[in-house]
Amino acid sequence: MTTQELISQIRKKKSFLCIGLDVDLNKIPQHLLNEEDPIFAFNKAIIDATHDLCVAYKPNTAFYEAYGVKGWQSLEKTINYLTEKHPEIFTIADAKRGDIGNTSTMYAKAFFEDLGFDSVTVAPYMGQDSVEPFLEFENKHTILLALTSNSGSKDFQKLSFNEKALFENVLEISKTWKNAHNLMYVVGATQAEYFKEIRKIVSHSFLLVPGVGAQGGSLKEVCKYGLNDNIGLLVNSSREIIYASDKEDFIQKSREKALLVQQEMEKFLR
Amino acid sequence: MTTQELISQIRKKKSFLCIGLDVDLNKIPQHLLNEEDPIFAFNKAIIDATHDLCVAYKPNTAFYEAYGVKGWQSLEKTINYLTEKHPEIFTIADAKRGDIGNTSTMYAKAFFEDLGFDSVTVAPYMGQDSVEPFLEFENKHTILLALTSNSGSKDFQKLSFNEKALFENVLEISKTWKNAHNLMYVVGATQAEYFKEIRKIVSHSFLLVPGVGAQGGSLKEVCKYGLNDNIGLLVNSSREIIYASDKEDFIQKSREKALLVQQEMEKFLR
Repeated sequence: MTTQELISQIRKKKSFLCIGLDVDLNKIPQHLLNEEDPIFAFNKAIIDATHDLCVAYKPNTAFYEAYGVKGWQSLEKTINYLTEKHPEIFTIADAKRGDIGNTSTMYAKAFFEDLGFDSVTVAPYMGQDSVEPFLEFENKHTILLALTSNSGSKDFQKLSFNEKALFENVLEISKTWKNAHNLMYVVGATQAEYFKEIRKIVSHSFLLVPGVGAQGGSLKEVCKYGLNDNIGLLVNSSREIIYASDKEDFIQKSREKALLVQQEMEKFLR
Repeated sequence: MTTQELISQIRKKKSFLCIGLDVDLNKIPQHLLNEEDPIFAFNKAIIDATHDLCVAYKPNTAFYEAYGVKGWQSLEKTINYLTEKHPEIFTIADAKRGDIGNTSTMYAKAFFEDLGFDSVTVAPYMGQDSVEPFLEFENKHTILLALTSNSGSKDFQKLSFNEKALFENVLEISKTWKNAHNLMYVVGATQAEYFKEIRKIVSHSFLLVPGVGAQGGSLKEVCKYGLNDNIGLLVNSSREIIYASDKEDFIQKSREKALLVQQEMEKFLR
């Protein structure tokens, strides 16, 4: 998917909501456990209930790998359902991969070609030659971890080098890499005070923002400094929406929750 | 596996060789493509030919994910074969994972419980709460990326903070985390000049050292500063051994190559 197609979808739906499909069999409505593939059944129900209110879905691969081969099958079915039934939706493999060059190429093929995701999250620690193999794929997007939403972000990401934090170095240095136009960045909603500075460095890039809701980030704060002329934001919510209810009414409840978020987003798009 | 069991195995076999099972269907002997599961058939042959010369095997998950569900099945079969047939072997899932707390727990379960690996490689970028969920598993080992063997290691890992490089901060700070005794570290063989400094910070830890052979690192240099009283080194070789031949004689050739490395290692263990 091109960035322009993503922007058009956001303007049409008046939403920059990404829904995280982090499926835990202990948390989904228990009647779904009778289904042949409970994870896919849950995802399909959530997608059917919310696809007009959001512009992206983001399965976190950990939740699928935890169920082994069966989990990987559920991931394949989910991405296939999305690309066939809702080709306008932007798909994100939240995998946080990154390895030496030839190995990153294998990961890029796995997520962009074999599974057919539009984007994948990548960790920057191993540097340029671990990220550039992902960037070679045109109209595919590499979402680099910059400043994450968790407490551990202070341990290394905020260490200062030449009066610049590590995450600022990641932003600045990655801009110089080949095919850097295929980069987006992860910036946690819990880091609102840094958005202004981040926007000075990557004014035109899309930011994928987890941490609104359950983790305590504020949509208002994120929008204040994060929005740019092309919107430039994908704000993720996982647990608040997909686990809005663990009863038979979960479809209706997840839609209601997604609608509330979409309506709040619409205000910031005016 | 306990660290002591690993050390005993090293002393018994006079080897601290780890063999990387990075299986590329374009590189394996083509007659194996007629097998029902060519990746597993290749791994089984390599394991049967080399298990008395090495102490660890390290499948890189990228090479399995690239083949989707089938690849994940091959990975499961490989780790099951290792744990059943060669329980004395130390197994490493080279996955370079790392995510926010509850998600890292899912990854830890996937690799330590579902698949049953002895260890997994983890990226430090997201900090303490992204790594500690792995450390909770007793007699399982978390191998944290410190200074990698690739050229991109200069981009961030060598940036200086308070006159210490980022990778030195990773070593020092991670030592303070809960259950830090379950940590090992990845240090590339191409970084020989840094081993002395690294041993000052983590004198007792095991180091997993890729980059000897194809990537240009020297075993002699690594041993000079890397060996400690408990050996403390696992040196990995992948392509040089497993792709020693792409013909029907690959079993014999891979054994010959592994034997050469083991014999060189034996000299440094005297």
